[in-house]
Order: sequence, then structure tokens, then C-alpha cells
Amino acid sequence: MAERERIARYFAPLAAPEPGAFALTDDAAQLIPPSGYSLMITTDSVIESIHVLPGATPEQVAQKLVRRNLSDLAAMGATPWRYLINLHTPSTLPEAWFAAFAHTLAAEQSAFHMTLIGGDSTSGGEHVHATMTCIGLLDGIALRRTGAQRDDDLYISGSVGDAALGLTLLQSASLRIAHSDYEFLIDRYHRPQPRLALGKALRGLATSGMDVSDGLLADAQQLAAASGVAFTLMRETVPLSDPARRLLQHDSSLWESIFTGGDDYELLFTAPPSARRTIATLSEQLAMPLTRIGMVKEGSGIALHDTNGTAIPFGKTGFEHR
Amino acid sequence: MAERERIARYFAPLAAPEPGAFALTDDAAQLIPPSGYSLMITTDSVIESIHVLPGATPEQVAQKLVRRNLSDLAAMGATPWRYLINLHTPSTLPEAWFAAFAHTLAAEQSAFHMTLIGGDSTSGGEHVHATMTCIGLLDGIALRRTGAQRDDDLYISGSVGDAALGLTLLQSASLRIAHSDYEFLIDRYHRPQPRLALGKALRGLATSGMDVSDGLLADAQQLAAASGVAFTLMRETVPLSDPARRLLQHDSSLWESIFTGGDDYELLFTAPPSARRTIATLSEQLAMPLTRIGMVKEGSGIALHDTNGTAIPFGKTGFEHR
Repeated sequence: MAERERIARYFAPLAAPEPGAFALTDDAAQLIPPSGYSLMITTDSVIESIHVLPGATPEQVAQKLVRRNLSDLAAMGATPWRYLINLHTPSTLPEAWFAAFAHTLAAEQSAFHMTLIGGDSTSGGEHVHATMTCIGLLDGIALRRTGAQRDDDLYISGSVGDAALGLTLLQSASLRIAHSDYEFLIDRYHRPQPRLALGKALRGLATSGMDVSDGLLADAQQLAAASGVAFTLMRETVPLSDPARRLLQHDSSLWESIFTGGDDYELLFTAPPSARRTIATLSEQLAMPLTRIGMVKEGSGIALHDTNGTAIPFGKTGFEHR
Repeated sequence: MAERERIARYFAPLAAPEPGAFALTDDAAQLIPPSGYSLMITTDSVIESIHVLPGATPEQVAQKLVRRNLSDLAAMGATPWRYLINLHTPSTLPEAWFAAFAHTLAAEQSAFHMTLIGGDSTSGGEHVHATMTCIGLLDGIALRRTGAQRDDDLYISGSVGDAALGLTLLQSASLRIAHSDYEFLIDRYHRPQPRLALGKALRGLATSGMDVSDGLLADAQQLAAASGVAFTLMRETVPLSDPARRLLQHDSSLWESIFTGGDDYELLFTAPPSARRTIATLSEQLAMPLTRIGMVKEGSGIALHDTNGTAIPFGKTGFEHR
């Protein structure tokens, strides 16, 4: 099918709610933000064999693509609004691939209340290469990475390391685990949950925040550096899901990936001790753990402590084994 | 060099003029349009071996990438303002590649008065794969593809077919041509000129318009279809550059690529006969040919006529040889 027919068949229906998308038949789309809002914009790609596994299904590509981008909006406290897609796909892909990809996009844009307004597509190459540019609405001040203060608490939402364990399970047939635990962990890898309601609620409450996509230690270093402070993380406080805990009991060598694996897309944020009660209430309202895992110090870099307060050495790629 | 260091060294300086880019260290950028404007957004990729030749220089990739996108804004009558870049590059590329790419982007953003505000980058694959998302400002009404009326004139800016001939020259060592003609034609392929001033001036004057990137015949078909009309093009009126004319005298088999080759990025537009004098004046002001090459009829599809008014048959990919 020609590119234009494919756009008309699969993608134009997704753009129908927005007149400024001109049914995807014009050279650019018009953005008319509702008054009182500023716009936040972010872009991220999903490339087969890098961000998703080789042979990933169209559903997996679409979900990872949308949610990676929305997690960036969540980290700034913005609400999804409009998006564009660039699609570069092997010429061998069947029409059913595009139908399934667009079907998943339709479900995602409905779930996250946003509308397709543009993009481009080409054929070629050996891997699916998809890029999304997402525009969010923001009323008021964005949540930034730069405001962490000495003596603030360091928090993480949800549970840490599930996605890395899910990826390990997908890549290793030898691990024995209950089916429901397996399903939970690989879903955490395939289908991240952008913490949009949390990010929005944290504006004016958290002093800094970002989403965790490169691993807890790597991203904590980024957040500390952006704010010009140091973090001390307490290893024993890092929240684990029950399936992760059971898998780690079974194979303790996987502990390291809890701290170094990426793809969790939880929010890492700092807030002053005076906000503890408000954050506990927020946690209840959102039915989502918001766990204190460390604190902000003067200086730079991050330290990871065990229960005795002893520093656990680690390098760029993980713990330092000696 | 790690991705973060590369962004800080080469790309963050390009984002310095815009506080809402947060020095490219945050999860998304903030867009605060000047009051009285709406935003136009477009996105297009440049993939090595598809949109540029294998082994294209970083300068060629950056220029084609920027100008492809700006041509889309020109076609809507919008003015460049902010942009994002996604860069996926083979891990074998030397640092000098990124330095040269960013250096060219700096020159382009200065020439076109726009500022980098975000993006992402990954390593891998065998080809450079770059995507740009460009946001333009629009005051008033966009130039659309949909307003061509029966009896309107059909115009094209500049000259047609130069880029296709330039590509032919790059791919064929056997064609003999004067050095200055060679340089002119390959420059038209490598470095399109987005017709921004023209697009802006055509708002309210042209009834429909688009940029020519897929070839004159293919794009004329698109414009006619979007407006629900037919076009008749007069072959002999199609404007050629002097270098193109000399090359065609040398090798008349290249005539077909004048009509079917892409990459000229001229503006194709319609306007009522009452606008002829205004368009002639505009042509003088911009020092750019704006040539009447046909007219709008009732019906659908396009016809190409020779000087005798006889229709020249052509199919999807070019003339029909019988």
C-alpha cells in the first residue's frame, strides 16, 4: 500500500478530533492551545532491538513509544494533549502490522486523552524505528530537575527494578518463576505506566523530579547533578514489588539490576520534610506507594548505604565487585 | 563520548537562547508562544541512503533535514521558531561528525532565526537517521491545500527539476557538463531553499499551496485532489534553470525527471486571475520567478499538455512510453 493510502486508512482517523490536524493531508498542523496553558514538548524514539526486543509486536512498539514520551510529560507535571509520529519500517512488514499499530495507538490516545496531529512515514531498513513527539498542557509552573535542597527527602513512586527483571526473564528461559509473577514483571517492561497524576500533583510540592528510565542509580546521579547537591540512598528502603522480591529470593545475583536496570518510568523526586504528611496523603489518594529512599546532602554525587550506614561501592555500570 | 556529554558539548549551546529549553537537561521543553500567534508543527526525517546519499556528510544531512522541514512551514505560510532533533547514528561515527553536524545546525538556526529546544539521541544501526520536529509561528490564516477554485491559475516558484538533475549527476560519472552547471544542480539537490518569504506573502493571495518534494506531477495530483479539482499543466511553460536547460540539450532522455523528480522544494500554488498583477509584483520583490504553468478545471486528476494542446500521457511514475 502506498504511504498516502496507509496514512488515510490507518492514521487519519486518529487525527479526526482535531481540526488543526487537517486530516493529515496538509504540510503542517496548527496548534491552538487553550488559553491559560503553556505547552510542554518532548520527543523520544523506540527502535527495535534497542528499546524493544527484536521482533516486538506492533502493540509493544506503540505502547512503549507512547508511554516513554508520556513519562517525560509526567516528570514535568504536564498533561498529554497532541502528538506526532515518525514511522520508518522494513518494507517487508505486512499491512496487518500497521493496522495493529494504529489500533493500539487509538487505544492509547483514548486512555491518555490526546490526539494525533501529524508525522511522516518511510519504508526501508531492517528494524522498526518509531519516533513520537508529544505536546502537553501545563497550567502554572513545571516540575523541574533543579530545585532539590539540602535536607530534603528523596522519594520514588511505585516499585523499582520490575522492568529490568522482566527484561531478564524475556532474555533467559532458565529462570523458574510463578506464571503470575512472570506476567507482572514482563508487563512492567512492555507497558510502563506514566505517572501523570502524580507528576501533576507534585508541582509546588516536590522541589525537583524526573522519571527513571536509565536505572535508579544513573538517574539519581542526574537529578543530584541538575540540582547541584548530593543524595544518600538507603538500599534497604528501595521499594520492591512482591514478584520482584520472590524472584530475588530465588536468584540473589539479580539484585544489582534493581539499581542499574532502566525502564521503570517511576518518578524520582525530592521534597522537604515538612511535606511528609501531604505526600503520605497523596500516596493514599493515588493508591501508589511514594517511598522515602534517601536524603539530600551538600556536595555532589550519590552514595548508597546499607542498614549499618556503610557505603556500598558502585561504578558507572553497577556495583563494584571486589 | 557518552550521550549526555555529547548533548552538553555540541547541542546545549544551540538551546542557550531559549530559557524554556532548560539547557536540554530536563524531561521536556516549555513553549510559550508570543501573544497573537498560533503555532504550526511539522516533522520529517532524513535517512542516509533514502533522503541523502550513502556516506552523506554531516553538513549535507543537517541542511537537508532543516530545509525539508522548513519547506513544510513555508508551504503553510508560517515562520520558523523552535525545533527538536532525534539523532540515531552508527556507533562508529567519529566525534568530528557530531561537531560538524552541530556546527551546521548552528549556521542553519542562525540563518532561519530558530532555536533548538529538545530531542534525543541513540547509537546503533548502519545509517544515520535524523528526525526534526519544527514549530513555526503563524499570525492569521494558514495557506492550505484545499482552496483551489475552477479557473484559478496554477503557479510554481523558482525552477523545476534541478534537484533531480543534480541527483542524476551525483549518481552518474559519465555526464559531461560545465563545472559551474554541475555545482549549481548538485547544490539544488543538497541544499534546498525553503520559500519562507513567499509562503508568508501568499496567505490571503493564493487559494491553495504546497511544497514540491515528490515531483511536480505527483504533488500537483495531491494539490488537485485536496482541493477537489483538476489541473491542466502546459509542459512548455514549466520554468527551467539555465544549467538544467543546457543539460537537457545534451541529454534529452532526462526530460522526464523534470516532471517526476522530487526534492525541488519549490511552492506550487493556485490564485485567481485577478491576482496576476499582485503576483508579478511579488515575484519582483522576492527576485524569484513565479511562473504560471497551468490552470484549474472542474473534475479530478491532472493533464499535461504540449504546445498544440495535445495531452501527453503519463502514469504514476512518469511518462507512458509507447
